[in-house]
Amino acid sequence: MKQKKLAVVGCALAIATGVSAAWAAPKKEPIQPIAPVKEINLAVAELGKKLFFDPRLSKSGFISCNSCHNLSMGGTDNIKTSIGHKWNQGPINAPTVLNSSLNLAQFWDGRAKDLQEQAGGPIANPGEMAFTHELAVDVLQSIPGYVVEFQQVFGTDKIDINDVTKAIATFEETLVTPNSRFDQWLLGDDSALSSTELAGYQLFKQSGCVACHNGPAVGGTSYQKMGVVAPYKTTSKAEGRFAVTGKDSDRFKFKVPTLRNIELTYPYFHDGEAATLTEAVDVMGRLQLGKTFTDDEKAKIVAFLKSLTGEQPSFMLPILPPSSDATLPPAPF
Amino acid sequence: MKQKKLAVVGCALAIATGVSAAWAAPKKEPIQPIAPVKEINLAVAELGKKLFFDPRLSKSGFISCNSCHNLSMGGTDNIKTSIGHKWNQGPINAPTVLNSSLNLAQFWDGRAKDLQEQAGGPIANPGEMAFTHELAVDVLQSIPGYVVEFQQVFGTDKIDINDVTKAIATFEETLVTPNSRFDQWLLGDDSALSSTELAGYQLFKQSGCVACHNGPAVGGTSYQKMGVVAPYKTTSKAEGRFAVTGKDSDRFKFKVPTLRNIELTYPYFHDGEAATLTEAVDVMGRLQLGKTFTDDEKAKIVAFLKSLTGEQPSFMLPILPPSSDATLPPAPF
Repeated sequence: MKQKKLAVVGCALAIATGVSAAWAAPKKEPIQPIAPVKEINLAVAELGKKLFFDPRLSKSGFISCNSCHNLSMGGTDNIKTSIGHKWNQGPINAPTVLNSSLNLAQFWDGRAKDLQEQAGGPIANPGEMAFTHELAVDVLQSIPGYVVEFQQVFGTDKIDINDVTKAIATFEETLVTPNSRFDQWLLGDDSALSSTELAGYQLFKQSGCVACHNGPAVGGTSYQKMGVVAPYKTTSKAEGRFAVTGKDSDRFKFKVPTLRNIELTYPYFHDGEAATLTEAVDVMGRLQLGKTFTDDEKAKIVAFLKSLTGEQPSFMLPILPPSSDATLPPAPF
Repeated sequence: MKQKKLAVVGCALAIATGVSAAWAAPKKEPIQPIAPVKEINLAVAELGKKLFFDPRLSKSGFISCNSCHNLSMGGTDNIKTSIGHKWNQGPINAPTVLNSSLNLAQFWDGRAKDLQEQAGGPIANPGEMAFTHELAVDVLQSIPGYVVEFQQVFGTDKIDINDVTKAIATFEETLVTPNSRFDQWLLGDDSALSSTELAGYQLFKQSGCVACHNGPAVGGTSYQKMGVVAPYKTTSKAEGRFAVTGKDSDRFKFKVPTLRNIELTYPYFHDGEAATLTEAVDVMGRLQLGKTFTDDEKAKIVAFLKSLTGEQPSFMLPILPPSSDATLPPAPF
């Protein structure tokens, strides 16, 4: 055992030496690397993972958090606007759950202050999971496997919606995507980006994109009006931050989305109307910056954006505890 | 390296010795243990796993094989009859995909001769995934990650629906659930079952359940009429094997479902009308065997049935390759 430990320490030293020899110094840029997860209660996160994948939190027994925030697909559904209970067409594009802990608030309009508050929303939204918090808790309380796990994790016999959303939020906090090629470059590996990607990043900075898309998540830190220089034309009824504050100045202000893993989270914008990254870059340039990018410039920026794809969360598919005879059956039809 | 190998061999010997000392001889019973997977092409199975989880095989981009054969939930959706495209209510209960390679044929009426033939069905069924084989292949062909993987696995640049369904079927062949407590008992561990479970198994045998529920899958080896002694009353329009053969004698004959993992695959019967195992045992006793089980007998049989829950397939959630600008977008609405 002691020998094994020493071997691991030796290995770590070798890696550290390798890094300092081959890499340049970390760079000072308006975008910072994604930090790995720390100080997570693993038991809570494991419970939260089960709940995230459990369609019994919906009235139909068919829709789970993972249905619209699919962790096989960049934490989104890759659909313009999401499908909810009875195939209801949602009003807005599902934002990625990846790195969502880095957002200043949750939902496009920031109406939930954090991930825990967000997690309760879709469960009770009639157009999404169409359940109630009371019924969701009743279902969980009827499942012996969950009763034991909540007891182990939270020390209580009585399952509470706050513990449910806390567990989901804790799992979501683990969904960071470090070690993208762009982060490797930021951390000092000059060979991590191609010259095209680097030129794209320079354009991204010089054109003013970083004014809003900055920080570790390359976004998520402010609300901005969609259509600064020219109005954004859409059939979407979403009014953004105005729905929360009621202030006219907040009309069409949306939370700036993260650009992390943007290659995976198509289609783009709150209405999902930009099908491709090239189209999204074009629209952003014209409407937000008053700048018409050439095809060559767009290609370079898109190349840079694709270097923001990080390591996807990697975990075993959770096996859910079975319902009991006392569990309320799903009511899909 | 050599030392490590020796250590492993030594360990295996120790286990083998332990087994022969503590266990009785393997038992001769009408039910046999589930065998572990062998001779699987792992590269094909890994590709098939991605396809199994990929909702882009549906018109909506929302429904994957895993939607109705959820591997977090015993390979079923735990809904009476499944939800399809635009929330269409399916005509029949989704059978579990677990151990489905052991079935004599696929679907309740056996209309697909094997898993590969089955896999093509839901993709093109207007009430399920509502796509066409041609469009599904076009979508895959537009995704660079899949093009590379099909090239690596099948050695072809041109993706073909037969390779798609072959990969899915190969993945499904890995979904066996060995090492249930009942199998441990079969293999000689007399302590693996409680006296109640054992009494339940004796009742199960003596009452005649094993006439149909036998073999490694505890079913899946024959078609039988639903309602032998007395007619089964249901609003379901499914006519079973008759739909395939057109023979009057095949009316209401359904493939005998596997009882493996039956604790996880509620609700029961082709119409999903039995919500609990106790109810299912009661109905089977009365309609198939002309036998009214007492509450005590039903409890014992249910206890036995729950000992058939095996090790669930355990694997990393697949990460799907992203669509390209050329990919046909989903059309959910």
